[in-house]
Parts: sequence; C-alpha cells; structure tokens
Amino acid sequence: MTYELYYWPEIQGRGEYVRLALEEAGAAYVDVARGPRGTHVMMKMMDAHKGTPPFAPPFLKTGKLVIGQTANILLYLGSRHGLAPKSEAGRLWVHQLQLTVADFVLEIHDTHHPLGPSLYYEDQKPAAKKRTAEFWSERVPKYLGYFEQLLTDHGGAYIAGRRLTYVDLSLFQIVDGLRYAFPKRMKAFEEKIAGIVGLRDRIAARPNIKAYLASERRIPFNEQGIFRRYLELDG
Amino acid sequence: MTYELYYWPEIQGRGEYVRLALEEAGAAYVDVARGPRGTHVMMKMMDAHKGTPPFAPPFLKTGKLVIGQTANILLYLGSRHGLAPKSEAGRLWVHQLQLTVADFVLEIHDTHHPLGPSLYYEDQKPAAKKRTAEFWSERVPKYLGYFEQLLTDHGGAYIAGRRLTYVDLSLFQIVDGLRYAFPKRMKAFEEKIAGIVGLRDRIAARPNIKAYLASERRIPFNEQGIFRRYLELDG
Repeated sequence: MTYELYYWPEIQGRGEYVRLALEEAGAAYVDVARGPRGTHVMMKMMDAHKGTPPFAPPFLKTGKLVIGQTANILLYLGSRHGLAPKSEAGRLWVHQLQLTVADFVLEIHDTHHPLGPSLYYEDQKPAAKKRTAEFWSERVPKYLGYFEQLLTDHGGAYIAGRRLTYVDLSLFQIVDGLRYAFPKRMKAFEEKIAGIVGLRDRIAARPNIKAYLASERRIPFNEQGIFRRYLELDG
Repeated sequence: MTYELYYWPEIQGRGEYVRLALEEAGAAYVDVARGPRGTHVMMKMMDAHKGTPPFAPPFLKTGKLVIGQTANILLYLGSRHGLAPKSEAGRLWVHQLQLTVADFVLEIHDTHHPLGPSLYYEDQKPAAKKRTAEFWSERVPKYLGYFEQLLTDHGGAYIAGRRLTYVDLSLFQIVDGLRYAFPKRMKAFEEKIAGIVGLRDRIAARPNIKAYLASERRIPFNEQGIFRRYLELDG
C-alpha cells in the first residue's frame, strides 16, 4: 500500500512532521502535490462534498481513508509503523505530546504573523517584533523547558520513554527550524536544552532520516513556511 | 468510576469542551480545581517527574491514566460514551474535526492576545483591533463556512454524519462564545450559518445540556476566558 501525502509543494510546513515519520518508517508514499497537477487534485479533494474533506493540508490518503490534521495523521501512522506504542495509554500519551508540539508550531508561526495568517508579513512587522520578543522570553523556555524536563525524567534517550516515537522526529524539526529562523537567539538558548539538542543529533544520524535530509525530497527552509528567517526578528 | 477533571476554576476556557461531553454523557466527574485546594493539586500534577505530566490544563484523570490536551481527552471519552463512532475511521474523522475546532479556538483567543498570551490585553489593544478585523473578514467565514458546508452535506442533523458527536457540543460552545464576545458582529454573521445556529439550538435543548447550562457547574462567560467581550473589538 502506497500512502498519498497531500501538502503544499513549496514548503516543509506542517507536512514535514508527516514526511519525517514516513521516511523514518521507510513507508512507501507519494508526495502528490509535488507532481504534475498535484496541487489541483489536492484542492479538489478539499472541496469534496462527501466523505471526509479536510479543512486544510496536510492530509493523507490510504485506501479509501482520507485523514486530515497533522497530529491525527501521526496518530494513525504511529502504532502501524513502530513510531508509537500499541497500547491505548501509550498512544494517548504520545499523541498528547504531539498536540503540544502542534500548539508550539502555531506560536512559532505567529511570531511572523501576529495580526493574522491572511496578511503579509510586511504589513505586520512592528507587531511581529513584539510577538517574537514575548515568544523568546516566555514561550520558548516554557515549551522547550517542558520537553527537556520530560527527556531528563525519562532517562535522556527519547521524549516519551524508552523508545523512539514520532514526537522525537518532530522535535528534531523544531530544533532545526528554530536554528534556521533565529540563528542568534537559538545559539544563545541551546545550552538550556542540551538533552533536546543531543536528541536532535541522534535523530539526524538515523540512516533513513540522514538519507532523506540529503535527498531532493527534503524541501529547503524558506520564507513561505513556518520557520522564516527575518533578521530583524532575530534580536 | 468517577472521572477527575482538572482545569482553571474561574473560566470555561478549553475545559468547557470536556465538561460539555461529560455532561451530555451523564458521566460521573469531579471538577477538582473548583474544590478546596484543587488548584494546588492540579499544579502539583503538572510538575510530576514521572508518569505523563501535562503541559497545561485541562487534563482528565481516570484510574491511573492522566490524559492531557482537550481534543485528546475527547478522543478518549468519545467512543466510550457514545459521542463518537467506534470504528477507527469514524474516530479519526471526528477527531480531525475537533482538531480543526481547536485551531479555531486558538485563533479566537488570539483576537485579544495577538502579541502573546503572557501580555495583558491592555498592552496590545491596537494589535487586537487589527487581528480581530482580519479574524472576522477572513477566518470566521473560512472556519464556520467549512462546518456549515459539512453540516449541509451530511443532511443537516449533525456535523460528522447521522449521529451526535462531541464536535456538535463544541460547535454549540463556539456559537454561544462568539455571541458573548462579539454580539454585534455575530448577529450580522449568523444568517450565513443557519444550519450551525439550528444545531446550536438543538444541542441547548438536549435534557442533560439544558440541565447543565442552568446549573452552577456552568461558569458564566467572563473576561479571563477564551471568549471575551471587549466592546471596542465588536466593530
């Protein structure tokens, strides 16, 4: 069974958390919107008047099932591909962590779009500066401090316990994204999350992830995605 | 088995989506933080260094299980209490919709806190005005238009299909919250979501919900919650 992933073809965005899981699992998938007329097909599926039309990309098609919302897709993939426990309690715990990652991702996006997702960054620069200052003084320490503590409490290997889960892959993406978007701020902050940084390195060195990152399937970071490098926001 | 719900005792907030599900189900639960020293107990559980400490309230304790993240709690409760399908495909679909509600709730919160959750509203009024304008011109039509279309496509009775789910209860809360926070704007908008408004009325008339809304267990809307009535934002 080949999965069909639907996401905007120009950015990593929220699709990247799904891509990392599919790649680590060695699962067969097509990144549909990167192919010919793929975006057109994606838009039509969102406009479907039957079945389970998603509100927004990413979504995953597997057989007749169409699954939307990043964390929901990972919930589906996790226990099927050894990236989450099989027990209900374990699945809920890992999903809970992923939903916290999702909240953090939304706040990361809001650093450059505090006045709303439909306005241009250029039209909200002063607000973006204020939001970014609050983000780094309050929110980054709160979110990454939480994950660092969890990692420590669980022995330092993986965030949810003794085994790799999709949340570890997402944290790799968070660290690399923050490094891209805020190189100076992140450099100063990393000493506070030594465990997470070590985890990031171990994820990057996993054979499937390493091969993925070196491939053309990995879209480079850019200023259309979640993590945007605007030097004026880097303090 | 009596559930223990943990949430800030002064507000409806995100805890309300869980309360509505527990009330509709007629499930036995204690709203722990509303009792003596309850907030203290809640804070200690979040600071636990073993088990599954949540990042933030609400969370639900059932036996030894502690489940965080609103949508995750509803995922757990849904199929146990007839508020979601039992099939995996059905559960994923309803959960997907709830995650879209959660995204909308976050955007509702950002109308009064565009520069960050840790700053006072009074320190971000001009930004809040801009964000609110974008919210009503772009985001409300997009989110509520999506749900209205789904409801129509599914025959008009319930949002996810033929039977009541926890998402219907959440949409009740969204309508009532928007009516509270933005009475003028919402009054003008409601003609575009006649189906959702009808659904809201049917939910409000369900015996368990009706009894709940008339009880002291329902905390009134106020200016510490998600939905805040600031007249200057009501256009």
